[in-house]
Amino acid sequence: MSLFKTVGKFGAYGRVGEFKTRRGTVVTPTFMPDATRGAVKSLTPEQVYGTGVQVVLNNTYHLHLQPGEAIVEGLGGVHDFGRWSGPILTDSGGFQVFSLSKLSKVTEEGVTFKHPVTGEMRHITPEISMQIQFALGADMIVAFDHLIGLGEVTSEQTLDAFERTHRWLERCVVEFKRLCAGMSEAERPLLFGVVQGGLDLDLRRKSLEIVQASEVDGIAIGGLSVGETQAELFAVLEALAPLYDPTRPRFLLGVGTPSDLKFAYEHGIDMADCVLPTRNARHATVWTTGDEKIHLTNAQFNEDPEPIEPGCDCYACAEGFSKAFLRHQFKVGEPLAGSLASIHNLRYLTRICEAYRLNESNG
Amino acid sequence: MSLFKTVGKFGAYGRVGEFKTRRGTVVTPTFMPDATRGAVKSLTPEQVYGTGVQVVLNNTYHLHLQPGEAIVEGLGGVHDFGRWSGPILTDSGGFQVFSLSKLSKVTEEGVTFKHPVTGEMRHITPEISMQIQFALGADMIVAFDHLIGLGEVTSEQTLDAFERTHRWLERCVVEFKRLCAGMSEAERPLLFGVVQGGLDLDLRRKSLEIVQASEVDGIAIGGLSVGETQAELFAVLEALAPLYDPTRPRFLLGVGTPSDLKFAYEHGIDMADCVLPTRNARHATVWTTGDEKIHLTNAQFNEDPEPIEPGCDCYACAEGFSKAFLRHQFKVGEPLAGSLASIHNLRYLTRICEAYRLNESNG
Repeated sequence: MSLFKTVGKFGAYGRVGEFKTRRGTVVTPTFMPDATRGAVKSLTPEQVYGTGVQVVLNNTYHLHLQPGEAIVEGLGGVHDFGRWSGPILTDSGGFQVFSLSKLSKVTEEGVTFKHPVTGEMRHITPEISMQIQFALGADMIVAFDHLIGLGEVTSEQTLDAFERTHRWLERCVVEFKRLCAGMSEAERPLLFGVVQGGLDLDLRRKSLEIVQASEVDGIAIGGLSVGETQAELFAVLEALAPLYDPTRPRFLLGVGTPSDLKFAYEHGIDMADCVLPTRNARHATVWTTGDEKIHLTNAQFNEDPEPIEPGCDCYACAEGFSKAFLRHQFKVGEPLAGSLASIHNLRYLTRICEAYRLNESNG
Repeated sequence: MSLFKTVGKFGAYGRVGEFKTRRGTVVTPTFMPDATRGAVKSLTPEQVYGTGVQVVLNNTYHLHLQPGEAIVEGLGGVHDFGRWSGPILTDSGGFQVFSLSKLSKVTEEGVTFKHPVTGEMRHITPEISMQIQFALGADMIVAFDHLIGLGEVTSEQTLDAFERTHRWLERCVVEFKRLCAGMSEAERPLLFGVVQGGLDLDLRRKSLEIVQASEVDGIAIGGLSVGETQAELFAVLEALAPLYDPTRPRFLLGVGTPSDLKFAYEHGIDMADCVLPTRNARHATVWTTGDEKIHLTNAQFNEDPEPIEPGCDCYACAEGFSKAFLRHQFKVGEPLAGSLASIHNLRYLTRICEAYRLNESNG
């Protein structure tokens, strides 16, 4: 059964398509903002919908630590909690366990780490990650993987993490199936397996092959956007582009900038998430025509009556908020400035996605 | 000519009515949030309109210091600047000059104070206050008054400030007329004179008489909400209630809480402004049924699935954001929590106003 339906193509590897989740169809390519702690920072769900976003990503690690999946589940799950009725994807928590936690200790069983606030020891295994994501109630969930950084890592360590990731994937699939017992195909969430392998293209290809041979609904590309150069990122995306199974959606984790996203979409990626558009926006950095990055606090905008991007249909631009107004609001520390800039940046990325979709459906 | 049209009454002194500004009719009683620096904190104009707010107040002092009235004027005035198309009222800057500035020195000419950031000396006179408010482009402007605190003030000082306020009022009227030259009645802003007199009821009555004898469009009650008890505030409002000119709108500056506002509206006040609903909201304090104040960060709301006030039609309550979600978002420092709580608090106050208007138009 093909989950993903291709409706158009662009370039050698790009595709326009759609796939069904239990909370509706997702049309691709698409960009998913991070609602890390249950909300896209400084925006209401209504404002997020207004940017053309279809799917938001909640972070398993953050919601597990606070308020805890039991509370979210008791309130009806992430959709009821954050009032987002569209599809929600949760990551596995793996990235954060390795990147944000001190004292993370990896065994074959799983990862032990210190709660960054209370200091108590927590344990996450592939099975526990599946259970947390089920409790949170996401529509798309991600297998728990062993991430290693790009820095001072031996090839032995890379291989060790690589192999463990695939052993953990099998455990995730088993636990996922157990948790889906009694659910119909239309009711169950979708499982994404994670492709690892660092910057080693042979390992990456092999990892993709292993993930695609397993019983997962979608393919996630992990372990990128962790400090590599753009050329290194592009090399991995190019290496994988010819090898994807056409029947499954492909999700690139943690990317990114307009140019990274365009390259990814043009190399067969269907969906991506990143904190960048909203984090940049809160720091007064926005994208405008030609992917130019401008800093709204610059003195040059002091009396600039133009919106961020004339012609943009986002609320901030269409309503006519001037760069001078935004500069002023950033300078006086008014959170509205970050909200308006976030709306623009998200719309900037969804317009990139829509341009691919529009050109294809016409072509 | 009567600016204010009474369409109904409630209690001994309360009234429902309306008056015209150059940017549309204001129906009263009404509550006006403070868009201190050109924006109601953490809310878009669309969100503010959604609460039923008709008029916002911009602070002359804050916008004069940053970005400066010349920049705001160059961008088309406060309406174009902050994208608020309804009526805007600016205060005179008097309150802030006296309460926020160090080294404020009062002479008969005006007030000299130190810029809180740059340290340079600034000078505001009644004429300059009128000029700044005209440059900002407000639809309702307020005469520059001499505020004195309630603390260690001699009756001589109170009397001195009292008399100066009225001399300054005459200068404001002259300057206001000069600035209105060439404008039709429909094009010009409205001028509010300020009633002072501290807690001395005789001085208050006399001040009202003087202000009402001058050529002002509206009556502003100043010098309250500066640390007095509720009984002291109520005593002033009671003393003035029988004495208002029925043809002019009455504006109470800097009030406040639901109970203060109800007392004010029931004693002939038509409009009031205050930072309290939005400031409280950003600190997780919201009003609910019966004017009860609840603190959303309380542990008791940890798993509370109910909205702030079941039945409330504000975006936060009607969309079903639970107290548990809001508590979580406040605890993790997410600005969305303050935005949602602000929407509720503003709607709470506009609902109080609407209840008076609805009861009267039906009665």
